[in-house]
Amino acid sequence: MVKNQKTIGVLGGGQLGRMMQEAAHRLGVELVFVDPQQDSPAKQLSNAEHIHKAFTDKEAIFELASKVDVITMEIEHVDTSALTELSVDQMRNGKAQDFGAAGERDLGIYPSPKVIEVIQDKYIQHRVLKDAGIAVADFSDVESVEQAITIGERYGYPYLLKSKRGAYDGRGNVVVKAKEDIRMAWDQLTGGGCSNITMGENGTRDSGIYAEKMVNFDKEIAVMVVKGLKAGETESYPIVETIQKNNICHVVYAPAGIDGLLMEKAKELAEKAVESICNIPYEIECDGQKQKVFGNSAGVFGVEMFLLQGEGEILVNEIAPRPHNSGHYTIEACETSQFENHIRSVLGMPIGSTNLKVPNAAMVNILGVSNEDECFIEYCKAHNIDSAKTSPMDVIVNKLLAVKGSTVHMYGKSENKKGRKMGHVTVVGDSAVVVEKKVKEILGIVNFKTPENSQPRQVETGTVQSGYKPAPLVAIIMGSDSDLPVMKQAAVQLEKFNVPYELTIVSAHRTAHRMVEYATNAHKRGFKVIIAGAGGAAHLPGMVAALTPLPVIGVPVKGRTLDGVDSLYSIVQMPSGIPVATVAINNADNAGILAARILASSSGSYLDGVQAQLDNLNAEVSKKIDRIEQVGWRDY
Amino acid sequence: MVKNQKTIGVLGGGQLGRMMQEAAHRLGVELVFVDPQQDSPAKQLSNAEHIHKAFTDKEAIFELASKVDVITMEIEHVDTSALTELSVDQMRNGKAQDFGAAGERDLGIYPSPKVIEVIQDKYIQHRVLKDAGIAVADFSDVESVEQAITIGERYGYPYLLKSKRGAYDGRGNVVVKAKEDIRMAWDQLTGGGCSNITMGENGTRDSGIYAEKMVNFDKEIAVMVVKGLKAGETESYPIVETIQKNNICHVVYAPAGIDGLLMEKAKELAEKAVESICNIPYEIECDGQKQKVFGNSAGVFGVEMFLLQGEGEILVNEIAPRPHNSGHYTIEACETSQFENHIRSVLGMPIGSTNLKVPNAAMVNILGVSNEDECFIEYCKAHNIDSAKTSPMDVIVNKLLAVKGSTVHMYGKSENKKGRKMGHVTVVGDSAVVVEKKVKEILGIVNFKTPENSQPRQVETGTVQSGYKPAPLVAIIMGSDSDLPVMKQAAVQLEKFNVPYELTIVSAHRTAHRMVEYATNAHKRGFKVIIAGAGGAAHLPGMVAALTPLPVIGVPVKGRTLDGVDSLYSIVQMPSGIPVATVAINNADNAGILAARILASSSGSYLDGVQAQLDNLNAEVSKKIDRIEQVGWRDY
Repeated sequence: MVKNQKTIGVLGGGQLGRMMQEAAHRLGVELVFVDPQQDSPAKQLSNAEHIHKAFTDKEAIFELASKVDVITMEIEHVDTSALTELSVDQMRNGKAQDFGAAGERDLGIYPSPKVIEVIQDKYIQHRVLKDAGIAVADFSDVESVEQAITIGERYGYPYLLKSKRGAYDGRGNVVVKAKEDIRMAWDQLTGGGCSNITMGENGTRDSGIYAEKMVNFDKEIAVMVVKGLKAGETESYPIVETIQKNNICHVVYAPAGIDGLLMEKAKELAEKAVESICNIPYEIECDGQKQKVFGNSAGVFGVEMFLLQGEGEILVNEIAPRPHNSGHYTIEACETSQFENHIRSVLGMPIGSTNLKVPNAAMVNILGVSNEDECFIEYCKAHNIDSAKTSPMDVIVNKLLAVKGSTVHMYGKSENKKGRKMGHVTVVGDSAVVVEKKVKEILGIVNFKTPENSQPRQVETGTVQSGYKPAPLVAIIMGSDSDLPVMKQAAVQLEKFNVPYELTIVSAHRTAHRMVEYATNAHKRGFKVIIAGAGGAAHLPGMVAALTPLPVIGVPVKGRTLDGVDSLYSIVQMPSGIPVATVAINNADNAGILAARILASSSGSYLDGVQAQLDNLNAEVSKKIDRIEQVGWRDY
Repeated sequence: MVKNQKTIGVLGGGQLGRMMQEAAHRLGVELVFVDPQQDSPAKQLSNAEHIHKAFTDKEAIFELASKVDVITMEIEHVDTSALTELSVDQMRNGKAQDFGAAGERDLGIYPSPKVIEVIQDKYIQHRVLKDAGIAVADFSDVESVEQAITIGERYGYPYLLKSKRGAYDGRGNVVVKAKEDIRMAWDQLTGGGCSNITMGENGTRDSGIYAEKMVNFDKEIAVMVVKGLKAGETESYPIVETIQKNNICHVVYAPAGIDGLLMEKAKELAEKAVESICNIPYEIECDGQKQKVFGNSAGVFGVEMFLLQGEGEILVNEIAPRPHNSGHYTIEACETSQFENHIRSVLGMPIGSTNLKVPNAAMVNILGVSNEDECFIEYCKAHNIDSAKTSPMDVIVNKLLAVKGSTVHMYGKSENKKGRKMGHVTVVGDSAVVVEKKVKEILGIVNFKTPENSQPRQVETGTVQSGYKPAPLVAIIMGSDSDLPVMKQAAVQLEKFNVPYELTIVSAHRTAHRMVEYATNAHKRGFKVIIAGAGGAAHLPGMVAALTPLPVIGVPVKGRTLDGVDSLYSIVQMPSGIPVATVAINNADNAGILAARILASSSGSYLDGVQAQLDNLNAEVSKKIDRIEQVGWRDY
């Protein structure tokens, strides 16, 4: 077979491995999976020889190392001591990856064992982040039930008790609602007693549990960060909004329905967080000598964050050292998928573009539904199907395929267990509004409910939350609130076209600095069109146009003198180089419609909307024609 | 494994099967391939048990039939008699697919054997199309060299002699340039003599050769048509433009750089062509009784067409009854890929959306390059690489990965043979201009040449051709040629932004019907913005806006009286419901720039262009500031 010269060994052979395998085939790269299941989701996708042992098995890891050029993983719960031992072997041969030296490498391990180790222990992960100056929720080590009670007094209730290690998808997390709950939570996390308390670092008692303060967040957001092998080679995907249900990532919207400047901030934070985890210096013992090395790493990292209520403060929640559920949408929606970029980065290939190639996308997980599920039974009754003889998954898949713009990914899991991640579906669209509508339809299908009853809910990791809301595409601004009676018509029209907008006051003369900032940032914030209204010496539209590359629509507002001609001339007679799209005096309706037409020029769904509006105008006049014919002009 | 209940058998296990397999895995559908090669491109992608026999082998086809629910193919050169026999068996059991009856089906064969049979013989294919009223190039059966000479006199030279069966990628086609070439062409196609002439239908001598008249085409275009199992269920992908090189499909641009109305016409023609091939009634003998059945079919069909020079006449060239090289771009660029839709359609699942999800895309084939290739040796010299020890394919892949927006698909072929299809690369972008630029870069990489020297050429199937040219996005129209001195500035600006446009005269008053037609069709033709200039009682912009959902920019042209205020008021003071984006009097520059801003609102590349233009304005004034400081205002 003509293939890339390198082979990658992957610890774990689940759905993440399966999607890595898809990407690897395209690149001509061979993967070898370590997974106890002979027909695991990933192994179904290749005729290569895999290793049918546990990915936590030291022997299996050493066997893999003998067969491949690079080891990576699709799950972080692996045996890091085995990986570290392999690293030491490499060092001994003068080929250690972690020195970042140029020399030949026999075996690469990415992400590096130290990075995995830090991430495996959520408490240490939090400490590393905090030490690097990354904002995280308040957290604290807990050695005993008594200490947990003291922490409750400090943090207030509810707060969280969490297992430091081995937790995922909400397992290993308990919400402590009151002092009385602590004992039960403690028992749940320790498995019924304190017997498993071991001695931690510095001789402290390690209960394996830590406490985290609940945060009042507005949204949960996430980003996939790609770290290349070369120093400083880091790229990020767009910020997405995740909606959790029972602590499992359930819906992901890309991009998030938040301000573009906030996204920029979140991206920087996430990259810094990944950088800090990858660059911790640590000591490694090799032939009796301690050497200081760095956890230099490569691969993709999923960074989950909280966007707090209020001033846009962002906290890092946790990091996954691998492709992540919140990045599945990248397969259909981005120029290069997270899985392909993982393969590329651990092999030192150029990192692919992380840009969205579609305006909007969303992903919904397909969770296992048993034949005994109430909703399924009800669905079967309504459709005259025998629920015992019908596969709920087949029903779901066939219905999902009818949702235009959706792509279904089934994982080939061995069993359909309730709540298990069986697959996912991605939907793309030319506007956030279109995508949101399809997500509701999809949620109805995967939950066997009517779309209205199947809104996702956010729960438990924080206390308050808001739902997903498409970010505004049009800014309506005016020099003064006295312009509002005229300008509000732009908003009225945009609502008819389902265009999300922001309406505010920006005065060129009275808030000149605000105007400069507003106009300069408008395209970075995510706006596509600006509508600006002003009267008299109407400078706002033209000044904004001078500061933004976006199309600016100017509405001349009629003042007390000159019948609005002063405003019209001030707005329309712009010098060459800086156009303002001027509409009729006081005609903010037309400004709203023009904005919709501008969006329509690149979006089929908005184009249909504008065509419908034109047809409506026609129909309205037709009615008048009929009436004038029926009653005559005298009685009209 | 939790999978779809149906299994599909696929005849052929090459790259088309490989990409079908990718799609099938996602849907949870198992594929079984018949291919002599044990590690064929398709088989590498699954751990299922395949059949390692020739796909032309009757026994293998019967073995496959016993294992699967549906048989399909990735290549049309299969044993149709075996498939027909299976069909007859089905009929005998009262389960024939070809009756289109609702009854239970044991085995589906899609496309149906009859469809494959018709397509296998290009001469018969042409006859069926012609009988159905589909325009094809003139063609004619040829029984002897003497007849070929007579045909030469009729068609003129050059013309084509073609093998009726077994031809692909240009093999089996010979261009006859003059009478003297005929004998050699004949020998080439018949293998050195006339010995293989057999008796054809109705007792005619069948030489296995037919003649086709050369057509003067402007472009080669193609479309993938998806035919569902249900009657009338047909969807088409966008029309693409294909650039051939040595008769091998080399570059595909999606969508084609042609008028949207022409695309609509081509799509209708292609769907009618597929319909006509699928719906020929034919007789089948079952237990001594002849029954009339229809070639009812399902699956995707690639339809290649010629767009003739002049009035936009379109001819069908040929049809492939399977996913096609000209549809590979659909994997990254469309809402559902041709491969997934093939699987969906042969299983009777809902057909997925065939819409483009990105504005523009292109595909370039990666052909095998030997280590002895001149260009490769030259490349290696220039880069100080040992050409004997370097894999040309590895060099190509690694360089392609650095082209942002591209996705590489390597096929896992067993050997890198010169000219063999080893893989392909798809590139997406937010404008045709961006994509075209990247295609040039990619062609440079796959050919080991500088991008300038690596323009694809079209050859041999026709005589004249033009290169790919992005279709116009902006229409500049004016009421009279007297407006041209003003309006041409819009064109000047658009060229600076690399925006393709059309400029023409459309007068509201003098060519009212043309105006209505022009405005009504503008969005269907592919325009995104209309710039309309007019003077005096300036009706053109407003009337056009009344007839199109697109944004219309109005340029008031100054007449002999009233200083252009008449034009300004006529254009800007539109009634509510129909906006015109009005710019300053005589300021067509600003109209061009505004059009670029409108495109920029949905395209990062145009946004960068507008930002650069703003920065430029700034820099120009800065220079003047410096000069006035240096020389003082007196000498300025």
